[in-house]
Amino acid sequence: MPDGALELSEKAGKMGKDGMNIALLGLGTVGGGVYKVLKRQAPEMMQKLNTELHLKKVLVRNPKRHEMDVDDPSILTCNFEEIVDDPEIEIVVEVMGGIEPAYTYIRDALKAGKSVVTANKDLIADRGGELLEIAEENNVELRFEASVAGGIPIISPLKNSLAANEISEIMGIVNGTTNFILSKMSDEGMDYADALAEATSLGYAEADPTADVEGHDAARKVAIMATIAFHTRVTFRDVYTEGITKISQKDIRYANALGWKIKLIGLAQNTDEGVEVRVHPMLIPLNHPLATVSGSYNAVYVMGDAVGDVMFYGYGAGEMPTASAVCGDVFSVARHTVIHAQGSTRDNVYRKIPIKRIDNICSSYYLRMEVEDKPGVLATIASIFGNNSVSIEQVIQKDKVNDLAELVIVTSKVRERHIRDAMLILNSSSVVKNIASVIRVYSE
Amino acid sequence: MPDGALELSEKAGKMGKDGMNIALLGLGTVGGGVYKVLKRQAPEMMQKLNTELHLKKVLVRNPKRHEMDVDDPSILTCNFEEIVDDPEIEIVVEVMGGIEPAYTYIRDALKAGKSVVTANKDLIADRGGELLEIAEENNVELRFEASVAGGIPIISPLKNSLAANEISEIMGIVNGTTNFILSKMSDEGMDYADALAEATSLGYAEADPTADVEGHDAARKVAIMATIAFHTRVTFRDVYTEGITKISQKDIRYANALGWKIKLIGLAQNTDEGVEVRVHPMLIPLNHPLATVSGSYNAVYVMGDAVGDVMFYGYGAGEMPTASAVCGDVFSVARHTVIHAQGSTRDNVYRKIPIKRIDNICSSYYLRMEVEDKPGVLATIASIFGNNSVSIEQVIQKDKVNDLAELVIVTSKVRERHIRDAMLILNSSSVVKNIASVIRVYSE
Repeated sequence: MPDGALELSEKAGKMGKDGMNIALLGLGTVGGGVYKVLKRQAPEMMQKLNTELHLKKVLVRNPKRHEMDVDDPSILTCNFEEIVDDPEIEIVVEVMGGIEPAYTYIRDALKAGKSVVTANKDLIADRGGELLEIAEENNVELRFEASVAGGIPIISPLKNSLAANEISEIMGIVNGTTNFILSKMSDEGMDYADALAEATSLGYAEADPTADVEGHDAARKVAIMATIAFHTRVTFRDVYTEGITKISQKDIRYANALGWKIKLIGLAQNTDEGVEVRVHPMLIPLNHPLATVSGSYNAVYVMGDAVGDVMFYGYGAGEMPTASAVCGDVFSVARHTVIHAQGSTRDNVYRKIPIKRIDNICSSYYLRMEVEDKPGVLATIASIFGNNSVSIEQVIQKDKVNDLAELVIVTSKVRERHIRDAMLILNSSSVVKNIASVIRVYSE
Repeated sequence: MPDGALELSEKAGKMGKDGMNIALLGLGTVGGGVYKVLKRQAPEMMQKLNTELHLKKVLVRNPKRHEMDVDDPSILTCNFEEIVDDPEIEIVVEVMGGIEPAYTYIRDALKAGKSVVTANKDLIADRGGELLEIAEENNVELRFEASVAGGIPIISPLKNSLAANEISEIMGIVNGTTNFILSKMSDEGMDYADALAEATSLGYAEADPTADVEGHDAARKVAIMATIAFHTRVTFRDVYTEGITKISQKDIRYANALGWKIKLIGLAQNTDEGVEVRVHPMLIPLNHPLATVSGSYNAVYVMGDAVGDVMFYGYGAGEMPTASAVCGDVFSVARHTVIHAQGSTRDNVYRKIPIKRIDNICSSYYLRMEVEDKPGVLATIASIFGNNSVSIEQVIQKDKVNDLAELVIVTSKVRERHIRDAMLILNSSSVVKNIASVIRVYSE
């Protein structure tokens, strides 16, 4: 070996032709998927990336328990120091989930000069800004494509292909569990409880389904997308959230009869009055592309001033789709490292747009209520709406239960606070026995 | 000004904080859109890109004619040398279209060390490989997101977010003109000629619509996507192409009755027998997401081994959507230049997969024919199919014209050559008067 060659090969051992080292934090569902994808892709990595990726360490709580999950059990460790202190590890992939210890691990990895790829929506929606700053200070990358809509490319298109657009709106179905439940209720006439039970038994819903069914999971994804699209910081706490637990089979049937589907929609709009970010059930017309997104599929609609509307559709969760997004990010980091070009993921938050209060949003509303079944009731209700600046667009009177009539009213587009005022008065009116549901209706 | 500051500012004048210079080749529809988008984005470029982009030159055939199209007519030139010889111009945007002089201009710009962004599908589908090689040799970028499906991000997702997938199939509606025509025929019962006339009057179809209606435009996009997805060189000439000119209102009606839509589909599959690349009308089941893509919208379906299926949907053409894609590429080049990271668009063609002959593809087929209206005819026809290894799945006998019956037959999935053999014999059979249409049917 000629002089200098050894030095060169040692350097190459760290980066370049001889490969780069990765560590994986977590070997659960997504971690297992990442392990599989890296293994499948190994034969072509050199051609795809101009380098090879070696999985050097996998952090798990109990290495013994995972010995059968990897080809070489010596890569398993329960000690994060073995990763953060190893100068040969250049990319850390965090797929543990949760805020701690994920936050501390990611922060320390970034500070140690390692790029980080994460699928952690809780963390990015809450503390993404801080972490991106730390990444920038240390001239490394922090990528999180998998944190929104699983395998569907959405973060990268927003940051790159669509970067020359002023984005005005993002609207999406970004939680597969609730979409599965609503699809079952709509297509098979199931009750909410039965549909949830099926989602749980299929592994789509977790033992505690709160984060999914109350819309928190979707809200985190909306916060992440709004931050990137509008260049202003939006966190989970800014997002108004309503879940699907109150949706009844009756509402589903009325919706179908009226030509609508009920979907849990995540919405982010950049309006003159501020950023509107909300997650709630919504009645979507059947001819809207989001109405046809069923089962555990996700889809995200983006409106830009140049591109018009574009939609991204696919699997929003699951072992392999999520691993696809994680490994796509890992490949990007590897390519950038090979050409010495880290730092391209900097935080593009340069505006400070206020968050619009939910009282101020404008929407059309569907209300289902039980009212007294006697003449003059509709006139009373209509005048309550009218007195509160709410116009009625459609009225349906159907089932009679005992001496009560069921009334469905669809309003024109009005301010939320007017609807709330009207509902207060309706609730105290003697002719209205119960307002059973209030669901927002899609309008352009 | 302290010593050294001048030198620094001169350097920055070329790149960095003080901005980068762009030249635009062409100021037609897309060029005009690019001009508008760059102008709209100017106030935020520094924040988005860490640099500013200045449009220094616009190449047009006749500068006088375009004086009203730009704020500063002094940027107009009819002399390419003013661009290629100007060391201050770092990015050249080609939106002229056609093979020459676009090829020569792009080649020379790359050789002069300038990165190039193009929307030119004809050129990329034909000579993209060569040009990417020249870009790599000169350590500059060549980007062409706008060459496929207008504003819809598809090239970049294939190269980046989905890079860790083995892509097995791409299937898309990638020509808005033909999709507009087919939608009019299907939704409004128009004839092909009337629908084409409306597309022409709305500016969707060109004076000579051949490239669109014969499927050549779609074939170019399929070639570009297949090359990137399968890492093997596919050119326009490799793509089997059939257009929509023979689609009749009768076929549209039969399709609707059978639960199908007729769409011009671009298909690329990486099979064990080679790469299948083809563009032709196809019967798509109504519940397939591509069936709902109507009017001038485009959509591209991608199947990957990890991600499963993902779909990208939006406007596939037009001034502003195409400009969105072009400017997204320009922004990416600018960002890479700022962080000294050009070279990330290298050609990832490292396989040599043969192209599968159309005779060898497998498909299900829809055949509409005029046959004699007498007993035993169906038996004769069925035995011809049977003798050629073609199974029949569905038979519809409907309209009678004079003493002829119209017969629609849908086959199982068979090799194309067997259908062709069967058709040869059917054509020479006395009971078959005419095979009016043969359309491939979607099957999984």
